Amino acid sequence: MTPLAVGVDLGGTSIKAALVERDRGLIHEVTRPTYAEEGPERVIERIGEVAEALIAEAPERAIAGVGIGAPGAINWERTTVSHPPNFPGWETINLRDRLRERLGRRMVVLVENDANVAGLGSAHYGAGKPHPSFLMVTLGTGVGGAIIYRNRIFRGSTGAAGEIGHMTIDYEGPFDRSGVAGAIEAYLGQRFLSRHARYRLMTREDSILHRMAGPDLQGITPKMLYDAAVLGDEGAREVLAWAGHKLGCVLGSAVNLLDIRKIVVGGGLSAAGDFILAPARLTLRRFVMPGMHEGLEIIRETRGNEVGMLGAAHLVFQFLDEPIPSHPSP
Amino acid sequence: MTPLAVGVDLGGTSIKAALVERDRGLIHEVTRPTYAEEGPERVIERIGEVAEALIAEAPERAIAGVGIGAPGAINWERTTVSHPPNFPGWETINLRDRLRERLGRRMVVLVENDANVAGLGSAHYGAGKPHPSFLMVTLGTGVGGAIIYRNRIFRGSTGAAGEIGHMTIDYEGPFDRSGVAGAIEAYLGQRFLSRHARYRLMTREDSILHRMAGPDLQGITPKMLYDAAVLGDEGAREVLAWAGHKLGCVLGSAVNLLDIRKIVVGGGLSAAGDFILAPARLTLRRFVMPGMHEGLEIIRETRGNEVGMLGAAHLVFQFLDEPIPSHPSP
Repeated sequence: MTPLAVGVDLGGTSIKAALVERDRGLIHEVTRPTYAEEGPERVIERIGEVAEALIAEAPERAIAGVGIGAPGAINWERTTVSHPPNFPGWETINLRDRLRERLGRRMVVLVENDANVAGLGSAHYGAGKPHPSFLMVTLGTGVGGAIIYRNRIFRGSTGAAGEIGHMTIDYEGPFDRSGVAGAIEAYLGQRFLSRHARYRLMTREDSILHRMAGPDLQGITPKMLYDAAVLGDEGAREVLAWAGHKLGCVLGSAVNLLDIRKIVVGGGLSAAGDFILAPARLTLRRFVMPGMHEGLEIIRETRGNEVGMLGAAHLVFQFLDEPIPSHPSP
Repeated sequence: MTPLAVGVDLGGTSIKAALVERDRGLIHEVTRPTYAEEGPERVIERIGEVAEALIAEAPERAIAGVGIGAPGAINWERTTVSHPPNFPGWETINLRDRLRERLGRRMVVLVENDANVAGLGSAHYGAGKPHPSFLMVTLGTGVGGAIIYRNRIFRGSTGAAGEIGHMTIDYEGPFDRSGVAGAIEAYLGQRFLSRHARYRLMTREDSILHRMAGPDLQGITPKMLYDAAVLGDEGAREVLAWAGHKLGCVLGSAVNLLDIRKIVVGGGLSAAGDFILAPARLTLRRFVMPGMHEGLEIIRETRGNEVGMLGAAHLVFQFLDEPIPSHPSP
């Protein structure tokens, strides 16, 4: 039997966690609300509860450790989580130490950025599995990114690498939440895309979105866009193609820089599939220099949110093989 | 005594080569015209001649090998050079095998992309030395780039990583030589920058460039721009600041993706120093997400073209420590 670990995907609204066996994948899953608004102490308590409950599921077996994918900035040593968005009152917390207090001082606990963990999960259990190196892009509330290089997370100088969402495609473009002009998140982040769709479709009274999204399209969501696209709505398809074009531009920049030619796209918006990915594929080739066209591919992640839990557990399996290298200066 | 190697910097107009001692650096230098227009056979012959002449300079010592920095695409194994720009008739040539025919079948010969070699030279002998990880940007005829990560060249999936010059900063911007819209090379490449300066300064009759560059500013060069800037010319300073702003935009994208926060700028245009780098530094911070501002730095390479020869020789020294890992699929 291969080792067993707990993988936790810490989100702003829910904690998804699973018992994972290295070779078999998910064994047992739990989802609980995060109640982030109750403050960090309550959140830490809830993670501890979930981890304990999962460990109790396999009373006869050893648990190699607990891996956690979290929003916010993670330090090089994979112990602390700083300023996760939508977690009020959370500054910098050593989640490793806090969980060890509860689970035992010898328990291996590792924390990593949620986008990186999704990439690692895809690399070992998802659409990224056939490819030693790929870019993972997560289209959700924001635009997350990770670099998987030779089956490992490329972490940069401090552990923060992979922020595709904040790469610019237009230096005079709209500002994203981080204040970067023309960053891809300012087009594809959920709030930005919904807003764009709302105003873009205002003059298209033929669009069924006027019936789906209420007066003045105020309630429009990305989910509605692809539901409408599936039903043949021209306006919705146009918006998703527009988004795909922007995605292709930023991926082109990333490919030129990294010479990594496979891209795995996950997150809620990836459910729109080819409505967004087909135009992205066309644009990608126009933004990658000709010498690097061979092997270019954009693939949809099909394991959905599971890659988060799987990747979090895999942090522990990888740690068994090779500890984290010491911190280089930035 | 530390090992000795030959480092060759193969350019379109001249071959610069040196005998390099690992710990001491350049021992003896030679420059010869490339005569690329006479075809690849003559170029290979000339590289062989230069290498032999340098080896003969140290008759009493062993030579660890010959490293070559070349334009064009290099394969993962560091043996072939494909389609170097400005080398008529050159398709794909196994430069390693060809040089071994001349220098002996047991001679270590390694080829690497010229921008990567400049980065490696800077890492071990130049401005990059204090930093384990940095981006190297070479502002010359084109815009070259290299990623140095933990003192090694980050080579991507096939060996082609680092093409910062073809990253877009405006998806509807002007096209570069590779056909990428808004690529940084379409602003900072020598031909593009000269053209921009020429038209931009047409209406500034007060600029001394009208005296330096001839009628209609037809003969304007980047060198003239910074000569004029040093003399206080407002128009020239404006053009260089415009260029620096664009450079800051693309570097911001690269930093967000890689979390590598040091940038070393070399090449002819880097001689313009703070006229271009001061605005680049200001813009860089506006295009990097706030969580990654710590440690951001743009440094000028002060060893000039020497980093090419030094880095080429260092390919050999590094090979002595660790052979090239096997090729992953792209």
